[in-house]
Amino acid sequence: MEQLAVGIDIGGTGTKFGIVDRIGNLLFSSEMSTRKHDTIEGFIDELYANLSPFIEQAGGIGRIKGMGLGAPNGNYYTGTVEYAPNLPWKGIIPLAKLVENKFKLPVVLTNDANAAALGEMMYGAAQGMRDFIMITLGTGVGSGIVANGKLIYGHDGFAGELGHTIIIPDGRLHTGTGKKGSLESYASATGVRLTTLEFLAKSKTPSSLRKLAEKDIDSKKVYEAAMDGDPLAKEIFEYTGKILGLALANFVMFSSPEAIILFGGLTKAGELLLKPTRENMEANLIQVFQNKVKILVSHLKESDAAILGASALVWELK
Amino acid sequence: MEQLAVGIDIGGTGTKFGIVDRIGNLLFSSEMSTRKHDTIEGFIDELYANLSPFIEQAGGIGRIKGMGLGAPNGNYYTGTVEYAPNLPWKGIIPLAKLVENKFKLPVVLTNDANAAALGEMMYGAAQGMRDFIMITLGTGVGSGIVANGKLIYGHDGFAGELGHTIIIPDGRLHTGTGKKGSLESYASATGVRLTTLEFLAKSKTPSSLRKLAEKDIDSKKVYEAAMDGDPLAKEIFEYTGKILGLALANFVMFSSPEAIILFGGLTKAGELLLKPTRENMEANLIQVFQNKVKILVSHLKESDAAILGASALVWELK
Repeated sequence: MEQLAVGIDIGGTGTKFGIVDRIGNLLFSSEMSTRKHDTIEGFIDELYANLSPFIEQAGGIGRIKGMGLGAPNGNYYTGTVEYAPNLPWKGIIPLAKLVENKFKLPVVLTNDANAAALGEMMYGAAQGMRDFIMITLGTGVGSGIVANGKLIYGHDGFAGELGHTIIIPDGRLHTGTGKKGSLESYASATGVRLTTLEFLAKSKTPSSLRKLAEKDIDSKKVYEAAMDGDPLAKEIFEYTGKILGLALANFVMFSSPEAIILFGGLTKAGELLLKPTRENMEANLIQVFQNKVKILVSHLKESDAAILGASALVWELK
Repeated sequence: MEQLAVGIDIGGTGTKFGIVDRIGNLLFSSEMSTRKHDTIEGFIDELYANLSPFIEQAGGIGRIKGMGLGAPNGNYYTGTVEYAPNLPWKGIIPLAKLVENKFKLPVVLTNDANAAALGEMMYGAAQGMRDFIMITLGTGVGSGIVANGKLIYGHDGFAGELGHTIIIPDGRLHTGTGKKGSLESYASATGVRLTTLEFLAKSKTPSSLRKLAEKDIDSKKVYEAAMDGDPLAKEIFEYTGKILGLALANFVMFSSPEAIILFGGLTKAGELLLKPTRENMEANLIQVFQNKVKILVSHLKESDAAILGASALVWELK
């Protein structure tokens, strides 16, 4: 009988889980809060209670090849989640081991952006590619890098933190890391909000964004204003794309990917963001890389992609 | 009988070649000018005339498993050298094919920095490592990246151009590429010379370097001055190391290598360069990467390393 995989994506707010077949059909899926349990054991107990009925419906534990977990700061080699700032459980959590003990199934863990990259490679925009980079543009900036057909984990399992690379030396402070000028401090939803506040303060360009209270300004509002033709909002995406494009050029000169796949909330801005990104990437590439690298937006449904990506880890199990 | 490999390193000025055994003993080696022949065919004829007696002495063509070539802009996938600014042959040269036809031996080509990385992995500072980055700090800045135990070639064979990544946006112009602020424009011998000219013009710090004619200033002179305690010369290495360290931090957050191996003329500056490099790398890394990544200087003899590296390509042949 065809084998199935469980995919679980643990996010800062919600945890999505489901059962996936080999060709990426999501047979069952649901979600639960990540934040209801102060202990990881309580969280896993609830996950077990929620998932077990689906596993039974799918034909029982014998049909499940394994479980794939994506989580912030998840480490593939050690199966641990280490010091994840956005999760309620602190320190080093032996997550894979704990889930394995509870479900009696093999468990593979990696960070959420690596899982997303695997999902794109198996079911999404990166099918058939052996060299690509996945960039998730959400509240933060995550990344997963595939070279020679394999995810790059690095010597310690933490490779692919492209959101923290420094693009503007001595640039904007990232309050989470204490570093200045990282990609994430500009090209995330949080970064777009900060750029907006800066531009509103510095520039005199008329803008509908000036009518909003500071706390109501977010990347979605800036997008809506830009779509309505607001000149300042357009400048904000222009600026964000310029920094993202410079960063992408550097990534291309590192691993020479066939494509860069963008995913996450900010990509909803479409050409408003993609045009300056593409232009500034090309402007910073040396000739041998120019007009070769595709910038693609993921076409996986956002709610499913995380589960698909996590489940994809299972098919790599020997 | 034990098999042997030919290693050939084609540089802008000279070409080094030799015969190497499996454990990295250089049995025969010699060199010739790269610039004597306007046609690639003439060059290969001379190479054949020079190498053949060695091959005979080593036991004849039957003992040679293959030939490894390192050359600027050498492409592993296509076996071509494409638009190499420092070589006398222009356009796209089918180098691997031409050498193969002449010698009747299998030929593998890659760029010189990738060959150096392989050499370090087989015989040098990276023995046993599966994840490391090789940076060559010479007239320019080259790089070879190993992840999951394999060189990263990228989708087109051109990966690993870290010298051209932009570290200082809108920084110093690189006249060869037309781009501004690349690592190579600062952290190469050429870059150190330009930094020296800038510092001499801008600063009033007394310096023995002021006694030199502009044309006589090079990174070696700056090194000698720094070793004599010259404060401006020390500042120049401090500045160079700061930029190199920032670049290395970005590279670490990409592929999380166990070590970064530095090679080439600038590394002779030792701690003058390494100390600020290490400090600024650590200062720009997020916590999870701090105090983990070794910065090592290659201990291979410079004249042998290029041949060893090129020959290492052969052992990867199926």
